Amino acid sequence: MVSLNALKGFVGKENVLSTLEDRICYAYDGTKQKYIPDVVVRPRSTQHVSDVLRFANEHEIPVYPRGAGSGLTGGAVPVQGGIVLDFTHMNKILEIVPEDLTATVEPGVVTQILQNEAAKYKLFYPPDPASAAFSTIGGNVAECSGGITGLKYGVTRDYILSLEVVLADGSVIHTGRKTLKSVTGYDLTRLFVGSEGTLGVFTQITVKLLPLPEKIETLLVFFATPQDAVRTASLIISNNLLPRALEFIDKSSIDCIKGYKQEVQIPDEVNALLLIDVDGKETSVKAEISLIEKIAMENQPLRVVSAKTAQERDTLWEVRRVISPALYNIAPFKINEDICVPRSRILEALNRIAESHKRYPSLKVANFGHIGDGNIHVNIMYDEGDKQRMQAENMIEEILRTTVELGGTISGEHGIGNVKSAFLSLEIPPQELRIMKDIKHLLDPKGILNPGKMFV
Amino acid sequence: MVSLNALKGFVGKENVLSTLEDRICYAYDGTKQKYIPDVVVRPRSTQHVSDVLRFANEHEIPVYPRGAGSGLTGGAVPVQGGIVLDFTHMNKILEIVPEDLTATVEPGVVTQILQNEAAKYKLFYPPDPASAAFSTIGGNVAECSGGITGLKYGVTRDYILSLEVVLADGSVIHTGRKTLKSVTGYDLTRLFVGSEGTLGVFTQITVKLLPLPEKIETLLVFFATPQDAVRTASLIISNNLLPRALEFIDKSSIDCIKGYKQEVQIPDEVNALLLIDVDGKETSVKAEISLIEKIAMENQPLRVVSAKTAQERDTLWEVRRVISPALYNIAPFKINEDICVPRSRILEALNRIAESHKRYPSLKVANFGHIGDGNIHVNIMYDEGDKQRMQAENMIEEILRTTVELGGTISGEHGIGNVKSAFLSLEIPPQELRIMKDIKHLLDPKGILNPGKMFV
Repeated sequence: MVSLNALKGFVGKENVLSTLEDRICYAYDGTKQKYIPDVVVRPRSTQHVSDVLRFANEHEIPVYPRGAGSGLTGGAVPVQGGIVLDFTHMNKILEIVPEDLTATVEPGVVTQILQNEAAKYKLFYPPDPASAAFSTIGGNVAECSGGITGLKYGVTRDYILSLEVVLADGSVIHTGRKTLKSVTGYDLTRLFVGSEGTLGVFTQITVKLLPLPEKIETLLVFFATPQDAVRTASLIISNNLLPRALEFIDKSSIDCIKGYKQEVQIPDEVNALLLIDVDGKETSVKAEISLIEKIAMENQPLRVVSAKTAQERDTLWEVRRVISPALYNIAPFKINEDICVPRSRILEALNRIAESHKRYPSLKVANFGHIGDGNIHVNIMYDEGDKQRMQAENMIEEILRTTVELGGTISGEHGIGNVKSAFLSLEIPPQELRIMKDIKHLLDPKGILNPGKMFV
Repeated sequence: MVSLNALKGFVGKENVLSTLEDRICYAYDGTKQKYIPDVVVRPRSTQHVSDVLRFANEHEIPVYPRGAGSGLTGGAVPVQGGIVLDFTHMNKILEIVPEDLTATVEPGVVTQILQNEAAKYKLFYPPDPASAAFSTIGGNVAECSGGITGLKYGVTRDYILSLEVVLADGSVIHTGRKTLKSVTGYDLTRLFVGSEGTLGVFTQITVKLLPLPEKIETLLVFFATPQDAVRTASLIISNNLLPRALEFIDKSSIDCIKGYKQEVQIPDEVNALLLIDVDGKETSVKAEISLIEKIAMENQPLRVVSAKTAQERDTLWEVRRVISPALYNIAPFKINEDICVPRSRILEALNRIAESHKRYPSLKVANFGHIGDGNIHVNIMYDEGDKQRMQAENMIEEILRTTVELGGTISGEHGIGNVKSAFLSLEIPPQELRIMKDIKHLLDPKGILNPGKMFV
């Protein structure tokens, strides 16, 4: 049992939550799993984090760092009880240095809030996970989040310059430098990025910012077949264009959003959508949008809708944003997969998913995602009851095996957590897995940091 | 002593060089150090590399992977004798997949040759080290090379998707996936990128490519003071522009290139240059170049020269390219430092270097480099003799200490090697260093891989 008095001594009693009502709030994340922690600690400083970890390590108590709890693979769920470290109070933007194109933040900063502050200096933080309005930078770094801008701008790991990390034993280390380049020693920064809270706990994060694009324009293109949409996406890239976003939405996803809050009317004959953002200087955006419209028009679109103002763009993007919640209209349970294949294999991946679906006809399947990156979110919806759940799990396993066969990865951007840890070995061979576990053991010999995640 | 027969058995006698004449060719790299290896092995396959490493590990023989030997920190120099692994023959571009925006190459491919091949598909590999015409991708990955495009496009680590690596014991592992995103397990790929041949030997490298920019234009701006140049560089970035290249050249460097092969006439009153590339769609390049010209004109330039054709660009860039060889006109020896500071500290760094120089008036100092990244190549030239060499080394130490004080890094892009290993602890604290050494020990317990590099 965790000593509440010791924890209160470290962080103050107002930062320790121990009633059942409070703890239940920390039992969940985006996966709808439920594991109630023994206690929740809300640190306000690096020293707090250090004291708590040193204590937890001495007493071998599991610790789970938690940002907004919006993760989709169980990263923040306290599967073995113990202490949840809630970073709600460590939410300060410590500095934005426009001349250096950097910002240093505490991990609890909500990603969109950093965006808003950076925008005041005409700068932006390029990674843009769909959860940006509520997820935190700390969570983004832990999972190496992607998002809709990955094709043009890359992912979280490409923008992290420097980290302050508290190790399992409470010691505080600093990785990288607040410079745009550094190759001094091994790249510990990127070892921690995407380590899902299993190697250390971030207390400060320095990110690289870029100049805010002058202009963003959006196109929504309706297609009669997914083949037309996939071909158009490929042609956009082979015509030397790199859109800010290139999103695909399939028929099942479209069906879900109909009837949901929706301002864009989508006719029944539409079986696939592409949603495309182009950014840059005003003149080049205009030229690129025209070229994309031309490419789309040559590939049998049913309709092309364009948006030039922020409000018009918002209306088109609403189509994409509502998919995830709207999917619950079909069935009460959902598994949101996150496969990524080489772009040339996307159509094959979609076909193989459809084949697999035929073997489980009672399940509902909807595919959408970042087609520009080859990153498809396969959503399997199912009803209550063991039979459907097991079918969904079997279908997931088929899809993950197919993905690896096609040269893809079982997680493009959501991470492994406890949800996919059983499948890690589908992709990672034994020796590579051994190296990862050895590194884990090196940094967290007692295994107190987010146990039960990444590895089984 | 290394058994030549065993090595010949693994790779064939035609791939083993053992005469003194041959071995002397492998004693050097870009640092002009001289250490003659016992033997040179030129593998032609992953199996060759694996067999040689397994054998070397069993017999505890040092192994030094070598690309073009153009490194500037001694990465390829066989400081403890043993086997040089020369990748000259593993120089195949295995595939370029335009639809996936990827290329897979063997490590001995010269970077420019990959660029030329990618250009046939209207693609490019963004990192552009000054050595691209002769350095290899394997060497670039080992050192995490930067180059002139870092500000806009990032560095080598941002473009490596997947690696085949032979470990010290001869086993072959694969990291990452050939997908634009992957977050499955820890990021072993980037642990190897920049590890300077001390953790494993690459045998296949998959890189991310981008669409080739439609247009590149170049400006060369002459200034009367370095302050004017540095201020102009800052204003370019604070005006929301991200040039493809933003290079600074100081008075001493300018003096060196005068009299060297040179088509651009530089008047005596010029004390600093900025060399700027802008790329993108033709319309946006035009707009950005105009804006940069306007910013330059408002900051007392002595002259602005622009280049629109490839040939004109080449003439302007010749000014930058000849600096490094031209520096030997001043003195026979050179130390080429590679510091990187937050961009806002550049002027302070230059001032502190000038102060330090006053203490060593007999040395010659020239500064140039990637001012857009805060990455300055400080070149200290000196004559033969211990006294000057020791002064140069003392001055280097002062500069590296200053750099760390200013929040900078002792290596922006050249690596540590054996040249800077004594200074690693100026920047990396003991615990972080301990973690790096533990990782080294984990992957190379007998220390056969590039011993004497990175760590002292």
